[in-house]
Amino acid sequence: MHEEFLKMINENPIDISSLHSLINQMNTVDIAEIFEDLNQKKITQTFRLLPKNMAADVFSYITPENQQIIIEALTDSEASKIINELFVDDAVDFIEEMPANVVKRVLTYVPDAKRQIINQILKYPEDSAGTIMTTEFVNLREHLTVREAFENIRATGLDKETIYTCYVISYDRVLVGEVSAKTLMLSDPHNIIGDIMETNLVFAHTTDDQEAIANTFRKYGLLSMPIVDNEQRLVGIVTIDDIVTIIEEENTEDFEKMAALTPSDEPYLKTGIFKHAKNRIPWLLFLMLSATVTGTIIENAGDSLPTLLAAFIPMLMDTGGNAGAQVSTLIIRGMALGELSPKDILKIMWRELRIGVLCGLTLGFVNFIRIYLMNGKDALLSLTITISLMLTVLIAKSVGCVLPILAKKLKFDPALMASPFITTIVDAASLTIYFSIAKAILHF
Amino acid sequence: MHEEFLKMINENPIDISSLHSLINQMNTVDIAEIFEDLNQKKITQTFRLLPKNMAADVFSYITPENQQIIIEALTDSEASKIINELFVDDAVDFIEEMPANVVKRVLTYVPDAKRQIINQILKYPEDSAGTIMTTEFVNLREHLTVREAFENIRATGLDKETIYTCYVISYDRVLVGEVSAKTLMLSDPHNIIGDIMETNLVFAHTTDDQEAIANTFRKYGLLSMPIVDNEQRLVGIVTIDDIVTIIEEENTEDFEKMAALTPSDEPYLKTGIFKHAKNRIPWLLFLMLSATVTGTIIENAGDSLPTLLAAFIPMLMDTGGNAGAQVSTLIIRGMALGELSPKDILKIMWRELRIGVLCGLTLGFVNFIRIYLMNGKDALLSLTITISLMLTVLIAKSVGCVLPILAKKLKFDPALMASPFITTIVDAASLTIYFSIAKAILHF
Repeated sequence: MHEEFLKMINENPIDISSLHSLINQMNTVDIAEIFEDLNQKKITQTFRLLPKNMAADVFSYITPENQQIIIEALTDSEASKIINELFVDDAVDFIEEMPANVVKRVLTYVPDAKRQIINQILKYPEDSAGTIMTTEFVNLREHLTVREAFENIRATGLDKETIYTCYVISYDRVLVGEVSAKTLMLSDPHNIIGDIMETNLVFAHTTDDQEAIANTFRKYGLLSMPIVDNEQRLVGIVTIDDIVTIIEEENTEDFEKMAALTPSDEPYLKTGIFKHAKNRIPWLLFLMLSATVTGTIIENAGDSLPTLLAAFIPMLMDTGGNAGAQVSTLIIRGMALGELSPKDILKIMWRELRIGVLCGLTLGFVNFIRIYLMNGKDALLSLTITISLMLTVLIAKSVGCVLPILAKKLKFDPALMASPFITTIVDAASLTIYFSIAKAILHF
Repeated sequence: MHEEFLKMINENPIDISSLHSLINQMNTVDIAEIFEDLNQKKITQTFRLLPKNMAADVFSYITPENQQIIIEALTDSEASKIINELFVDDAVDFIEEMPANVVKRVLTYVPDAKRQIINQILKYPEDSAGTIMTTEFVNLREHLTVREAFENIRATGLDKETIYTCYVISYDRVLVGEVSAKTLMLSDPHNIIGDIMETNLVFAHTTDDQEAIANTFRKYGLLSMPIVDNEQRLVGIVTIDDIVTIIEEENTEDFEKMAALTPSDEPYLKTGIFKHAKNRIPWLLFLMLSATVTGTIIENAGDSLPTLLAAFIPMLMDTGGNAGAQVSTLIIRGMALGELSPKDILKIMWRELRIGVLCGLTLGFVNFIRIYLMNGKDALLSLTITISLMLTVLIAKSVGCVLPILAKKLKFDPALMASPFITTIVDAASLTIYFSIAKAILHF
């Protein structure tokens, strides 16, 4: 249908009624995707062709660059109308991406009440529950009957992002309970909400971090979660569709940090090459300059470092880096999922010590045999490398588990203590050990 | 409440009525968590103390080891009863974890119809839609009115995992439409389902991969998705709570593969140290032995490799590894999220070439100045290292983008082509270049 749509809007004149009947068969998300294939002129033209009742919905799925193009082509009152029809959380997402002059324009004709809500949300700390919640939800009072609750939902429900969990609040707006649409549908119409509502609530505060909220959704299998202010008053809800997006964003951010990249929200192909370079160069530079330490260790090993000894440097460095990356990845991931916390540090270190011994012994054994056979059955050389290797693995496992936990403890992001950084540290330790042992055993 | 619960079940005699009133205030997930702190005897004893209507629900959240302990302590008929009360997808999850003799026992008293469904699901390929779907859902016929639909939901809804999207099927069970509970609640009771149902459906086949399904949920913001067989007959639904878990599992798997670990479903602290070692050693061994190639390159550089040249090996290797890890991570992640595909390969390579030049020039410039100043203003040495570094970055960026795409094209998992593997390849290329340039410029 994508191709058919493109063909229709490129005809002259455009057959509006066929286009609308095609649009009626399409998903809003797929319609929004079409805008990515259009040029600036076609974007505004096509947006104006959308059925009025659909425009805001499609708009919420369009990329920020194209949203800006559309808004700039609309009159102030048309633009305000679109913003007013968006769900509050989508409106906030949009406004966060726009330059100040566009924001000022689009908010001109938005009613005061909605503008105040939007401004309030924009004030919450980045990545907090407050910034991802929507303020449109169904709230009920305890004394209503199920029948009255349904009437309430019918009267207001069309504007609400989710009606599958209704929240029960007191007269001062304090959250007191929740009742699912399922319970309502399966209950006798004369039942009283206060009697059938659930009072063991899982909720969060406006300032709570979105990653913690995502973990709670996962743990309890929630569809939505109420968000309260410091006085326990219900101010918004977070819905699961946003959580799915947040989980992927948080994961992408961790993947990027762990690969020594400055995290970026933009998809790979949408990012310019200068932006890509800017996200990569600072970390590469920092790690490159850190390797000066390792270089100095080699230089100090003496003027006559035998080539044969130098030949094992890559193997030691790579194995140390890999052994460290394995454990740091497990620890960083475990902490992101809430399965591990800094208080487990001794338990983790004791495990890694034993795992390090197991890995070190196995690798050492294979390594000794390989070197012994391939290097003229030189037992002392084989022993030097093998002992260095085993100690390298042990150090890598220890550094790899301690650093991410320490980072978390010090309120840094553990994902920064990943492979690249740990490799740099383990390299230095590994080579220092290697040359000391080589001097002791081989007297080079 | 966790502590209070533990205290209560350790009293003698146990005050059942206080315990039940505590349980009534607790979330099922939190009750299940308590079993992790109990010994074997207490586990079975506590499980028997749960209110009957709650037992199966709590059971579905208990860890597989503890599920097995409980099942082994129950009679065959008690065990079958629990399994029968589980949602089909939870029952399948449980059975997949149990040894054959336990499976045989628990299925003894499960009704034939349910046993057949469970056996059918167990036959679907691993990680396919068929294995994660549930067969309990609300299905409606087109000719019903909204009022009749509600009666239908009320009559059968208590057993269904989700009732928020009802699926409309024809007489031969072919999926023809869907209607959300929201639409039903907001519609006139006399409306006909066939008139209000949505017919632009997003659905999947039983054999589709769960990662693709998770991406579709995210793209369209779905709460549930119908799963059809080859004849387009509706056989099950996948719900968003399972998708959230699957997304985190798939991410964990990618993190692990990218750090050269054999993926494991078990949380870090629940995995024994031998299992940990087993997940790590094969990859470490493989990569250690691969480094033999790099070692041979150094050995062949000649007997008199100056220590000064050896000193820059770690810097070159680490920078190459990091530059490669950056791009391979972006590509692997982009493909996992469905943002990149193998057909983009030329576009990606052209970008990486230019980004590689930008990164290479910047790093090279800083590197030249540092080496020039720190190594007695030796311009030829500085030039040798700088040219090698720039070429290393270019190669790393190219290898880092091509290998994951190639893997995907060949139906391997791109996540295997991550940092450790790419580092090993880039090391070899980088050192070969380094020694060639050094011989040409410095004539060592």
